[in-house]
Order: sequence, then structure tokens, then C-alpha cells
Amino acid sequence: MTHSTDAWEGLARQLRADSIRATTAAGSGHPTSSMSAADLAAVLLADHLHADWANPHDLDNDRLILSKGHASPLLYAMFKAARVVSDEELLTLRKRGSRLEGHPTPRLPWVDVATGSLGQGLPAAVGMALAARLGERDLRVWVLLGDGEMAEGSIYEAFELAGYYGLRQIIAVIDANRLGQRGPTMVQWELERYADRARAFGWNALVIDGHDRGAIHRAFSDAEASDRPVCVVARTRKGAGVSFLEDKEGWHGRPLPEADARRALAELGNPAGDVRITPPAPRHRTPAPGPAAAAPFSPPTYAVGAEVATREAFGDALRALGDARPDVVALDGEVGNSTYTERFGKKHPARFFEMFIAEQQMVSAAVGMQVFGLVPFAATFAAFLSRAYDQIRMAAVSRAGICLSGSHAGASIGEDGPSQMALEDLAMMRAVHGSTVLYPSSGNCTAALVKEMAEGSGIRYLRTTRGKTPEIYQPGEPFPLGGSKVIRRSGRDQVAVLAAGITLHEALSAHEALARSGIAVRVVDLYSVKPIDAATVETCARECQGGLLVAEDHWPEGGLGDAVAEVFAGRPAPALVRLAVRDMPHSGTPAELLDDAGISARCIADAVRRMVGGGAGRGAGAEAVTVR
Amino acid sequence: MTHSTDAWEGLARQLRADSIRATTAAGSGHPTSSMSAADLAAVLLADHLHADWANPHDLDNDRLILSKGHASPLLYAMFKAARVVSDEELLTLRKRGSRLEGHPTPRLPWVDVATGSLGQGLPAAVGMALAARLGERDLRVWVLLGDGEMAEGSIYEAFELAGYYGLRQIIAVIDANRLGQRGPTMVQWELERYADRARAFGWNALVIDGHDRGAIHRAFSDAEASDRPVCVVARTRKGAGVSFLEDKEGWHGRPLPEADARRALAELGNPAGDVRITPPAPRHRTPAPGPAAAAPFSPPTYAVGAEVATREAFGDALRALGDARPDVVALDGEVGNSTYTERFGKKHPARFFEMFIAEQQMVSAAVGMQVFGLVPFAATFAAFLSRAYDQIRMAAVSRAGICLSGSHAGASIGEDGPSQMALEDLAMMRAVHGSTVLYPSSGNCTAALVKEMAEGSGIRYLRTTRGKTPEIYQPGEPFPLGGSKVIRRSGRDQVAVLAAGITLHEALSAHEALARSGIAVRVVDLYSVKPIDAATVETCARECQGGLLVAEDHWPEGGLGDAVAEVFAGRPAPALVRLAVRDMPHSGTPAELLDDAGISARCIADAVRRMVGGGAGRGAGAEAVTVR
Repeated sequence: MTHSTDAWEGLARQLRADSIRATTAAGSGHPTSSMSAADLAAVLLADHLHADWANPHDLDNDRLILSKGHASPLLYAMFKAARVVSDEELLTLRKRGSRLEGHPTPRLPWVDVATGSLGQGLPAAVGMALAARLGERDLRVWVLLGDGEMAEGSIYEAFELAGYYGLRQIIAVIDANRLGQRGPTMVQWELERYADRARAFGWNALVIDGHDRGAIHRAFSDAEASDRPVCVVARTRKGAGVSFLEDKEGWHGRPLPEADARRALAELGNPAGDVRITPPAPRHRTPAPGPAAAAPFSPPTYAVGAEVATREAFGDALRALGDARPDVVALDGEVGNSTYTERFGKKHPARFFEMFIAEQQMVSAAVGMQVFGLVPFAATFAAFLSRAYDQIRMAAVSRAGICLSGSHAGASIGEDGPSQMALEDLAMMRAVHGSTVLYPSSGNCTAALVKEMAEGSGIRYLRTTRGKTPEIYQPGEPFPLGGSKVIRRSGRDQVAVLAAGITLHEALSAHEALARSGIAVRVVDLYSVKPIDAATVETCARECQGGLLVAEDHWPEGGLGDAVAEVFAGRPAPALVRLAVRDMPHSGTPAELLDDAGISARCIADAVRRMVGGGAGRGAGAEAVTVR
Repeated sequence: MTHSTDAWEGLARQLRADSIRATTAAGSGHPTSSMSAADLAAVLLADHLHADWANPHDLDNDRLILSKGHASPLLYAMFKAARVVSDEELLTLRKRGSRLEGHPTPRLPWVDVATGSLGQGLPAAVGMALAARLGERDLRVWVLLGDGEMAEGSIYEAFELAGYYGLRQIIAVIDANRLGQRGPTMVQWELERYADRARAFGWNALVIDGHDRGAIHRAFSDAEASDRPVCVVARTRKGAGVSFLEDKEGWHGRPLPEADARRALAELGNPAGDVRITPPAPRHRTPAPGPAAAAPFSPPTYAVGAEVATREAFGDALRALGDARPDVVALDGEVGNSTYTERFGKKHPARFFEMFIAEQQMVSAAVGMQVFGLVPFAATFAAFLSRAYDQIRMAAVSRAGICLSGSHAGASIGEDGPSQMALEDLAMMRAVHGSTVLYPSSGNCTAALVKEMAEGSGIRYLRTTRGKTPEIYQPGEPFPLGGSKVIRRSGRDQVAVLAAGITLHEALSAHEALARSGIAVRVVDLYSVKPIDAATVETCARECQGGLLVAEDHWPEGGLGDAVAEVFAGRPAPALVRLAVRDMPHSGTPAELLDDAGISARCIADAVRRMVGGGAGRGAGAEAVTVR
């Protein structure tokens, strides 16, 4: 049973009025972008969005993503109409302490993912739909898009993947009000062009009048019955409902001054503001799952001295994690035979999602999946995670928990050249709020860290290496987040060499060469780049009077060297020599490129010799002690 | 006059053979991805790519972009056939010191832009086509794409913008060999689907047999006569020409072992390798321009104490720069009324390019434009430049010179909330090879830096502030790259407060408050974050025994604090207190958010008091001296 046309109209008026009231009270915000979609929102809320509003995290609820996040006043007005936000709270919009932020965030439990960086709502919906399908939940994921954001490439990645996977759960509604922030969109009201695009990606699509509530209802009903994703292109007018705002330029992101607001509310009939609707209940109740057949994590193990690439150990550990935990899923950027996620995929095909060469979509899908309690691991070359940096940034704003793995880090990949080398990924990932950044040097370390990642929170990043490295740890050795390993230590270490990943092995070779010259150095594996093991770094600084040396296969900015320097914030700091990649690498063998970059064993040893005053150090002939 | 079908066939055989020979000699690389496109490349090189190969930087040359950069052996084989690379050099592929890198870079003068991160060739072509149109050059921009990269959203941004601007210069050729790295593409050989997509964006499109050289010739001829951009979808077979490679999985990125290579070359008829073709000359000679009517740069000026937002000063300075320099162009991400690039656009409409909400396309277009000697300034909210980080990274690999401006930096934007706040942009931009990172605090500083940017090289980034700040510098004050300004100094400064942008003004307020308590602090404007003014930072450390304090509207990682710490690399460093944004900001007023983040004047003053031991400092009552 549906609401009456009168009910829809009353609700739409109220949504418009509340959008105006809230933004005028706030003194900023986007009333007109809210008003264009008010009829769409009214019909959706009243009769199509099946949800138990008292239980926002009920996974049988339909999901609603306001991809055009600047229309947050409309969303909050919907929440009020659904009786979960009071009128009083509505008027706290954009004020300090309010849950009603300028753009929606999951501080409100009815918001699954933060929006406000355009073009990210639909890609997140792809992840939600895949998760719903995996969980056999009969729900729809409604995405309200602006037409301006249809210029974002990420939208077409979502069109493509949703079409490929036949995600009938997704209903995308484009609020085509023709006007962007600074003027008309490219397409304006030639709306069949949007529909043609959607169809070209395998969607159903139709164009409607976005202010004809009956037409909206019919379109939404048809969409709910579709066997493929549906794009409803709605012709709307920005500021619709108020004559002096409708389809006018110059009103984007402007609240109405008080007098204008009064006029506008009068035009809307001064709605009483007390419309409260009873939205439809969830379509289906998924039976609670039986107790999960959790198995212990049985990681791959490597004998000390055996050679394995950490990217391969990642793939094997991920597969093992999938054996142990049914909530772990994997996403691939069409390089699963390089990152070895294919080993997870072969073992757990239902939980493996090929995202093809669409890194933005891959990350957004992971964000969508974690809404459903899944623990997604998304992997590609580390260099190509830079393609999704905005999505990763927004994942942090979404308070999302996702695991990312980037392979082929650094100049040490060799012949493929700089386009394939991640040399900025540590900087990029460290500068994500609440992130964890890990960089293992061996197979056993990698396997342990993969388990730690699954048990962590926030954005967790694992950097792996293309080439094989020898195992230096025993199987089962623990690698807690925020820890480190002192691998070489003596009572008379002059310098501490701090390294991670590929350069740790260079540091160990340098240690040997230096020992032959009588120079004792400590070697520390800083596998946890963020959080860093500050206590151990401080101990090194205290005990190694010649200073600290960091060697990293990364640009000098933002990586391991900066992480070590931050340990000493607020206090005088010891000398810290920073070996990093300073010139644009070319093609060459890994060994050549490490040496060209000044981060090879030879370069580390030379730098240590300079630190200790040239030539042989004190106490020549003493043996280094291996400490584990 | 065109080459004969026999000539095409001979050339195609040679291109295939050379792709095999070079990769087998290298021991790595992508022969089969090269072979699928060999017929397309042969016909293109022989009869359609109008270029003076002896003058690769001749701007009347057609451009060729190998968007599928991993097929570099094919490109290098084309260069050999065009007589600009010797067979001897061809066989240096992927070796240290060779110009023939694993993926193409502009170390070879016939390569305009680096490729290897997929989906970036076509967006760069949009910039080239716009530049060619601006320069009234009759040329075509040929882009050879892989079908795997058709999953990248950046491709559709380019489809959209090229369609919108009617860029008939662009001819995109999709080498649809059906197989990606790890398996089939989404579309495989249902190639009308690609054509439908291109048409939905306003392109002409056709599907051909990519091994039928006559059909290729006809398609290319038609494309050259089209009045809109054209997409030629070519059905090909990976490894085409060699029976045991054709359309086989498992050969991506694998060179042929010697014996297989011999068999393959035999199947190809053991081409002599001496085919050299004479490509068609440029279509048209653009007359050399007369002497440019260069005018002096007449920047906007602001009286000391006047309030202006640096984003607005940027817009006015850019307009003025456009008055002075005809090579300056501007690109907007549909926020030109926020970044004020619209002021450039109103004055110089022909040199203003609206890229709509497609940040990846905006950056790639800038990269394409600079190939034509233009000096592009691309601007959007700083937060949204993160959307194009891979493109910025690749711009550095391209040795491109582009200017980027990001507005609305930091928590100080206020009510819009964290999705709109750039809090990682300094980290991101510092970790770009050869970058320049600038962060002005006032209008006159901004104007001076805009001019410096235009005269600089590499990736130049300007961070601007949403809110108004008071002018603290005289008009005409110089702001060299790598410089700084000591704004407050006395002979007895206990602490140096290092700031930039919005926090500089907080630092000045803190200075006043501290002076009232008898604590003298130095205040330094580090407007040049990279390169940083190391000498001044060192002087501060030497003269201010209480240490250094950095306050920045940015996450703690990778920003100004890290830049200051790096000054002391290799030496003991002074105490450096780092005030930065550590919790996820919410909505609120700018003043509230600066204070919540711990970077307001109050917080700076409190931190200084803690540094100097609490309470009033030494020499209470002394006056601070303003030094300019």
C-alpha cells in the first residue's frame, strides 16, 4: 500500500521548507540543490526505501546513498520525516558539535558512507550490492546523484562494474537540475544522453519528469522489479518549488537570507513541518547465520633462508586468512597474478571480486562492503593506489575499515621503469587519518601482518616488494602493529640502520661489510611504519652515538625517514641520515637501481663510514651479535 | 599517395619481429600486447601519422600517444622503422642507461607524455587537441589504447570532454585483443559495446578487423575527415602473427625464451628487419608567430591590513598573468567561482578551459597542453586534487611543467566539513619528484608566487585558503622560490614559530599575546614549503634556544613539520614542536575548528609557554621587533 499523492506532496513541501530553514539557520549550505530532488526524495522515502529506521545498521534495510553530498539538508529533512532526527536537531545543521555536518558522515547512523567528494556514492553502492548478494539479502541500494558529478570518471567505473555483475540491487537516480556550481552542466537537459550512457554499460535507463510524483513512483516501482541495475534520469529544476529560485544561476551553495526564506516558505504554503511518514519495512528478513565455522589461521610458513617475494606471501596469507575467516573478501585491480590475490580467488571464488583496471572502483567497493561487516582486502600495484587517493581519503572520513595492499613498491622493481614504481605511497598512506602503514621484509613477517591487518581498524596499508627476499624470521614470530625487530645488535653499535622491506636486506649486507671493517651497526626492521615503534627508535638513538640512518626505497618526503624524525617531536633529535630515492629512476635491474638510488648495501655502508668519521670504526675486529 | 598493401604487410611483420627480438633480448616486457597492434601501427606509421620525424618537437606534427604503455616494444619498433632509432638501440630495451625504458618516457623525444599507468593517454590527448585548436594547427592526435584500460574512469572523462568540445583532432584506436593481464576483459569481443559508449559521449565510432590492413586504412582515412572525435575499435588477437601465441592466455608480460623466439621469427618469415618507411609529412605549416606582444606582469595589489582570501588573490593574479603572457592558460574543475579562475576566464575566454567535475581529466589536459609550450594553471579545491594523484605522479614521470592550485585547504574552511578539507595535500605534493610546493598567507604574496610559478619548472603547487586574511606585506615584495620571511624578530627570541598560510596569522596573534607575557618569539613565514629555506630555519634553530614550533593546518604527516625536520638531515636537530590537525574535524566555524585542531593562536601561545618552561618567559616587558 502506498501513500497518497497528497501525502507525497505534503512531504515534498516539508522537505523543501526544512532544507531552506536549516540552511538559513546555518548561514551556509545548499538549499536549491536539495529542493530539486525533494519530489524524488519524498516518493522514495514514503514508499520505496524499505528500512527499519529504528535499526539503521540492520543489514536487511535498503541503503540510501546521497552521492550529491552537498544536498545534505534534504537528507536530514528526510531523517526528520522518518522520525529519527528532531526539528531541533535539524536546525543545528553545520554547527560545531552537531551530527548534521555540511556533508553527510557516518556520525549519523543512517549514513553508511561519507559523501561530499563527488562521484563516489555510486561506486560505493557497487560494493554494497555485491555484499548484499553475497549475504543473500533482498534489498536495494538507492543512490541519489547530481548531474554535475556525472562528469567524474568514477561514475563510469561503477556503471561498468554494476553492469558486468548485473547488480539489480542498484537504483541510481540522477537529479538532473541542469546547473552546476558555476553554470550549466555539459549535458544540461538533453537527458537521453545520460540514459544512453547507462544503457551502453548494460543498465536499464529511463528519463522522467523529476517533479511528477506519480511518474517517479512508477519509475521506482519498475526499477525495483528490474533484472539489472537501473538508472532513473529525472529532469528537475534547481530550487524547484520557489519561483524566484527555480532554474536560476547564482544560487548554488547559498542559503537564503531571512527575508527571502520567509517569502520562500510562504510560497511553499508555510508547511507546518509535522509530516511524519511510516516508511515501508525491510523487504525480507535474512535468517541470522548459524555460528560461523571459524577455523584457526594457518599461515604460510617459510624456512629461514628460503626466498619468497612478500607479494607472494601476501597472496598465500590472504588465502589462509580466507580459510579461517568467512568475513574476509578480496578485490583485485586486474593484477591478481602479480599481487597473488588470485590464490585467494581460486580457493574462495564467491568472496573474490575482480574489479578490473578500475582502482577507484576497487577502493570504493571495499568501502561499500565493509558496511556489511565484511573485511575487504583490495590489492593492486602500490603505484596505482595513487589513482584512488581521494577514495582512500574519503574512506577515512567514512570511518571505514578497509585493508589495502600495494605491490611492486619502489625503484627495486627494476626494468618496468618509473611509471610502475610506487615511490610516494608511504607519504600518501601515512597522511590518511587513523591509517596503519606496514612494510614487511619477509614472508613470515608478511603472513603475520596480514592477520594483524584483518584484526585492525581504519585504513590499513601493506606495502610489498616485487622481487624475492630471503626469510630472516622463524615461522610464528609475532609482528604486532607498532612494533619493530632489532635484528643485529651489539654492545658497541656506533650507528643504527633503520630500514623496512627491501632495504632491510641491503642493511643486513651492509652490516656484514661494516663488521669486516670493524664497524658495529645496529639493524632494525621498522616493519610498522605507522604507528612506528618510538621506544625502539629512541633506544637506538640513545645507544648508538653515531646517529641513525634510514634507508628507504621511496622519495625522501613523507616516508620512513619522516616517520622516524617524528618520533623526536618536541625534543632535540639525534643526527638522522636519510638515504632515499632522489632522482627519477630509469629502467635497469633491481640491483642496479638500488645502487643508482643510493640505497644499496654499498651506499648504506659508505654512509655509515662517513657518519663514524671515515675509515674503520672503533674496535675493529669485534663480531656483531645477532639478536632476535 | 599511400604505401602498398605489401609494404604494410612487410612493415607489420617487422614490427612484430622487432617486438619479439627486443623483449627476448631484454628478458622481460610485453611482446604479445605489441603484436596485437602491429597492423594498426604499420598502417598508421606508413600513411596516416603526419610527422617530421627529424623534428620531434615540431608542433605541426601529428601526435602519437601509446596509452597502452606496456606495448612499448611496438612503439620503439615504429621508431626504428621511421629511421630515428637504430636496430642496435632497439636491442637495449629495458637496460640500464637505455632511452628505451620498460614504459615510454619523454627521454625519447618522440614521446610527449609518459604512459604506463593505464587510462591516461586519451585524457592527455584532450589537452593536446585543445592546444592544437588554440594554436590553429591542423594535426591529429592518435591514441593507441588497450582494451583493458577501457575500465578506467579517466577514459570516460576524456570521452566526455572530447565530445563536448568536438575535438575532431582526436582519433582513439582501441586494440581490442580481448585479454588483460590475468584473463579476459569484461567486454571481450562484444566490441559494439565500446562503440556504443563512445557514441553516447558524442563521438563517431566504428568496429573493424584490426588485422585487415585495408580496413584499417579506410577507417583511419574516414577518421581523419571526421567532424568529431573518432573511436576506431579494432578486433585483434593478442600475439597475432605467431600461431602458438595468438589469443592465448598466460603470455602477458612474458618475453619469449630464445627457442620460442626463433620459432616465432620463422613463422613471421624471418623478416630482414630493414624495412624503413617514409611517413607522410605534416599536413600544414603553421606560420611562425610574430613577436608576442608581451606585457609586463601587473599583479593585483593589496594595501597592508586589507583583507583578501588568497584564493581570490590567486584568481586576480592569474588574470593579470594572462594579460602579460599569452602562453598562460587556465583549467577549471567546475569551481571557477570558488577558485576565482573565472576571472581569468572572463578576460581570456579562449585560453580558459572548463573541465567540469573531472579532476583527472583536468590534470591530464594540463599535461597535454604543456607539450605545446603552454603554461597551464589547473585549479580546484585542494582536497579534490587527490582525485588526480596518479596523474600528477605520472606528470612528473613525463617531465611535464604544470601549475596546480588547490583552494579551501585545511580545517579552517569551517562549516563544509572534512570531505571538503585538504589535510593531506602538502604530503601528497611534496612527495612528487621535482615538485615545488607553495603556501601563501596573503594577497601580495600570492600574486608574487603566481608569477614565480609561471617561470618555474616541473610540478608547481599553490595551496590557498578559503577565508580572508589580512595583508601583511607591501605590494611588490619579492617572494623567491625557496625563500621565507622573518616577520617578527628580536635579539632575544626564545622560540621560533614557523608557519605558512592560515596559521601564520595565528602565529602573529600568538606573538602578540606572548609579548604581553614577556615571551619573545620569532615568527617566520615558510611560504615555500618545498624547496624550504633551510638557511633561515637553521638560523632560527641557532638563535632561538627554546626550539622550533611548527603550526600547520594539515595532518601531522608529510607537511610543513616534516619539511622543517628534513632541514636537519644528517645532523643533530633542535627540539621541534609540531602542532597539526590530529583528529578528524567536524563542521564548525573556522575559528572553532582551528582551536579544536590545536593550531589557533591560543594553542600556539600555550605550546610556546610549555616550551619555555611555563609562565612568563625571560625578560618580561621587552618589546618585539618587527623585521621585514
